[in-house]
Amino acid sequence: MRKASKIRTRWSQASVEGRAPAFPGPIWGLTILGSLSLNLITIALLASLYEGHGPLGCEAGSSGFVAEPEKAVLIAPPQSSVEEVEMVSAEEISVSSTAGSRPTSKDAIINLDHGDPTVYEAFWKRMGERGDIVLPGWQSMSYFSDVSNLCWFLEPEFAHQVRRLHSLVGNAVVDDGRFIIVGTGSTQLFQAALYALSPPDAAEPMNVVSAIPYYSSYPTVTDYLRSGLYRWAGDASTFEGDAYIELVCSPNNPDGSIREAVLSSKNGKTIHDLAYYWPQYTPITGAADHDIMLFTVSKSTGHAGARLGYTSSPSSAVEIEHLCLMYLVNLRWALVKDKDVAKRMIKFIELNTIGVSKDSQLRVAKILKVVSDGYGLPGNKHRLFEYGRRLMSVRWRKLRAAVKASGIFSLPEFPSSLCRFTGEETETYPAFAWLKCEKEGVEDCESFLRNHKLLTRSGRHFGVEAKYVRISMLDRDETFDLFIQRLLSLR
Amino acid sequence: MRKASKIRTRWSQASVEGRAPAFPGPIWGLTILGSLSLNLITIALLASLYEGHGPLGCEAGSSGFVAEPEKAVLIAPPQSSVEEVEMVSAEEISVSSTAGSRPTSKDAIINLDHGDPTVYEAFWKRMGERGDIVLPGWQSMSYFSDVSNLCWFLEPEFAHQVRRLHSLVGNAVVDDGRFIIVGTGSTQLFQAALYALSPPDAAEPMNVVSAIPYYSSYPTVTDYLRSGLYRWAGDASTFEGDAYIELVCSPNNPDGSIREAVLSSKNGKTIHDLAYYWPQYTPITGAADHDIMLFTVSKSTGHAGARLGYTSSPSSAVEIEHLCLMYLVNLRWALVKDKDVAKRMIKFIELNTIGVSKDSQLRVAKILKVVSDGYGLPGNKHRLFEYGRRLMSVRWRKLRAAVKASGIFSLPEFPSSLCRFTGEETETYPAFAWLKCEKEGVEDCESFLRNHKLLTRSGRHFGVEAKYVRISMLDRDETFDLFIQRLLSLR
Repeated sequence: MRKASKIRTRWSQASVEGRAPAFPGPIWGLTILGSLSLNLITIALLASLYEGHGPLGCEAGSSGFVAEPEKAVLIAPPQSSVEEVEMVSAEEISVSSTAGSRPTSKDAIINLDHGDPTVYEAFWKRMGERGDIVLPGWQSMSYFSDVSNLCWFLEPEFAHQVRRLHSLVGNAVVDDGRFIIVGTGSTQLFQAALYALSPPDAAEPMNVVSAIPYYSSYPTVTDYLRSGLYRWAGDASTFEGDAYIELVCSPNNPDGSIREAVLSSKNGKTIHDLAYYWPQYTPITGAADHDIMLFTVSKSTGHAGARLGYTSSPSSAVEIEHLCLMYLVNLRWALVKDKDVAKRMIKFIELNTIGVSKDSQLRVAKILKVVSDGYGLPGNKHRLFEYGRRLMSVRWRKLRAAVKASGIFSLPEFPSSLCRFTGEETETYPAFAWLKCEKEGVEDCESFLRNHKLLTRSGRHFGVEAKYVRISMLDRDETFDLFIQRLLSLR
Repeated sequence: MRKASKIRTRWSQASVEGRAPAFPGPIWGLTILGSLSLNLITIALLASLYEGHGPLGCEAGSSGFVAEPEKAVLIAPPQSSVEEVEMVSAEEISVSSTAGSRPTSKDAIINLDHGDPTVYEAFWKRMGERGDIVLPGWQSMSYFSDVSNLCWFLEPEFAHQVRRLHSLVGNAVVDDGRFIIVGTGSTQLFQAALYALSPPDAAEPMNVVSAIPYYSSYPTVTDYLRSGLYRWAGDASTFEGDAYIELVCSPNNPDGSIREAVLSSKNGKTIHDLAYYWPQYTPITGAADHDIMLFTVSKSTGHAGARLGYTSSPSSAVEIEHLCLMYLVNLRWALVKDKDVAKRMIKFIELNTIGVSKDSQLRVAKILKVVSDGYGLPGNKHRLFEYGRRLMSVRWRKLRAAVKASGIFSLPEFPSSLCRFTGEETETYPAFAWLKCEKEGVEDCESFLRNHKLLTRSGRHFGVEAKYVRISMLDRDETFDLFIQRLLSLR
């Protein structure tokens, strides 16, 4: 059974009503292949144009990365699809951009393909020593963090600070009936959840689906090991079947829409990916209370390098209106409701990496503590979410003005809602811009922008048309401002 | 083609000549099942005996762990097989042991099932502030460590200290022709190597083999996702076929023998697991120079909690006599020779966890620096390998004396060799004791020892008879000494 789509996104300029446009699914594999070939040619062209030119020149690197120190480019991005990475090999290319660094000139190639959250660096520099942690050489040597816990590799202080922060923000239920599981990186807990929800002895793999536009990593990460337990089955909106795992990302990566599951069956399972359900991106309209909810610190505090997240599920499966979900990229955490599911997720992490870095857990516990402590101090200086929200609102205002001025692009629009955390009616400022190219004759927006030295991720990776691209809104100020200037120069 | 076995282990007491005894492979699944049922019954019995008795009593926990703070027990160990973990559920058991803690009485249950390397804690406490590291709140926020490197998530300082330590010890070739890849936990790089060496489009999965007794995690980790790329195919010594990946662990986990590949075919690949090729365990007879070599800090410096390792492969595939291999459990590293293989391993880690904790890499870089620096200081106080070697030699002397006194056990014996690192003729002191029960009527050594409150890992998990058990030699002094006393009490 399919429920009516509940994806609430309106489109400005191009005025596409209702949900994101459908894409001719069956041929998208071929389309990607074709487009990637085109990209390769474009990159080769760029390479010959920019190789070794003054501050833009760079040494030949490898594996998709070619760089001078501090002036590097990522062509084969960690989050891009296998096809893309394998086709766009490092050897053929030699360009410079802003990935992992600041732009060096007005003409620099701007890489906004990834959601690298360096926007938060300035906040943490301002926090000074408050965010520091000392790790003694003899500490955390054992495999075990807490043998009395179901999740034996979970540091108690990390778990405490996760519960404390969610209680403060009110974005997820974290009562004692939920199990907290810590994971390494955005995809580990996602894979752990697939492993936990797929019957171990089924004759056919479990179908994994998500409504378009879906996060570009979902298909790749589901299928890279050709598992007999689960397989990617595409767009949830067109899925016919009874047994499935539906991935619900809300606010959605890439388009920022608030989502609920589109499928409904008693044999169906859902994983709620809540990476972006934090007050800097969206109004907090209620405490999320789903079976499996995934979170990450890389999009909440910006600590992508720590590779930590968590998951949780509620003690009762009460559905909350306006549920917003989060996806955790680095130190991830999951809040899980069902004990057997939690056990299998933990087993996956045992088998996959024998637990999760204790160093990162201890460090992130300190970071989360500083965030929560900030709300007990006078003034706004120590308040991460206010910092993030102000910054995102300024960026979105600049972006919308530039899009309007260009006349050749459009952006989704979002309703405003009462945020229970701030107590104010607030707008949505997604971590990614989902840009549509409306210029006549341009079918491939990624290529069009790449020709203007702006690296983005094509809609094709998200299961939709090449007219769309996803653009990170979380880079450093200098890079973001250069992006706006570049956009304003396009007609 | 099968080469003659080169596993050089002699057996004392029971005088089993040549290699470890063969096990009736086809029925070991059933045997494990049967034994696990027996274990469950034994555990249930122990539970009823010890539940809530004074200092041994403990709260009911979950997921295989039941504990009081500091008096915890692990029944479902992270390294044990899926079958074991899923059968030995936490709910049925309530015992106390020394996992993750010190023994609380002479009668305590002693858990030596895991190789938790807490033996090194005392050394790092002695090092004091030298081993400390401060991580500022704003540091390492980006996904990227070094975009000019093939392995874009590898911290340059970690790579530098890995090369420096191997150059000092002389146990592996680390020249510039090799790629260093960092991984999370013992199994991530192992899986990355399987992924890299298996053809992506083959009709049949690649066969993964290892000579018995093989490390108990190999079958489980190979098969848990039912991958279409690779599958566990059992004992390398009896494998018939041309296409395979052979896992060569040397010194071998569980039996400490020095190993080379037993198979030889131009379509065959090998992964060399060198976790224990460090001077505290075995003479360093040459610099290992294989295509893919895996290492870990958990067995070299003892930092299991950091979840870090590395891999490397040589620029030329020169075979070194007396090659010793290492297996890295936590921060792991791999030294890889073939660029395309390295690329695919890196791709696996991108897809699996989008890189590796930078916090742990930075911390372990500091730890490795302290180890190398120690050899530039006067005296032996700062020399980790001398500390480890002295300690292991004392422990093995005690163990051999206890085994001799008991009259019902036997241990492998090892030849001594010239260690190029120390310049002395030295013996082998493996991180695990591979104990055989010679007592009449005892077919299941694990159960026999469990009845005496000593938790070990049965030979069945390593593909051989239940007369064998693996026992960790790396626990804290108090636990080890209690183990020796317990052994001496058995007749």
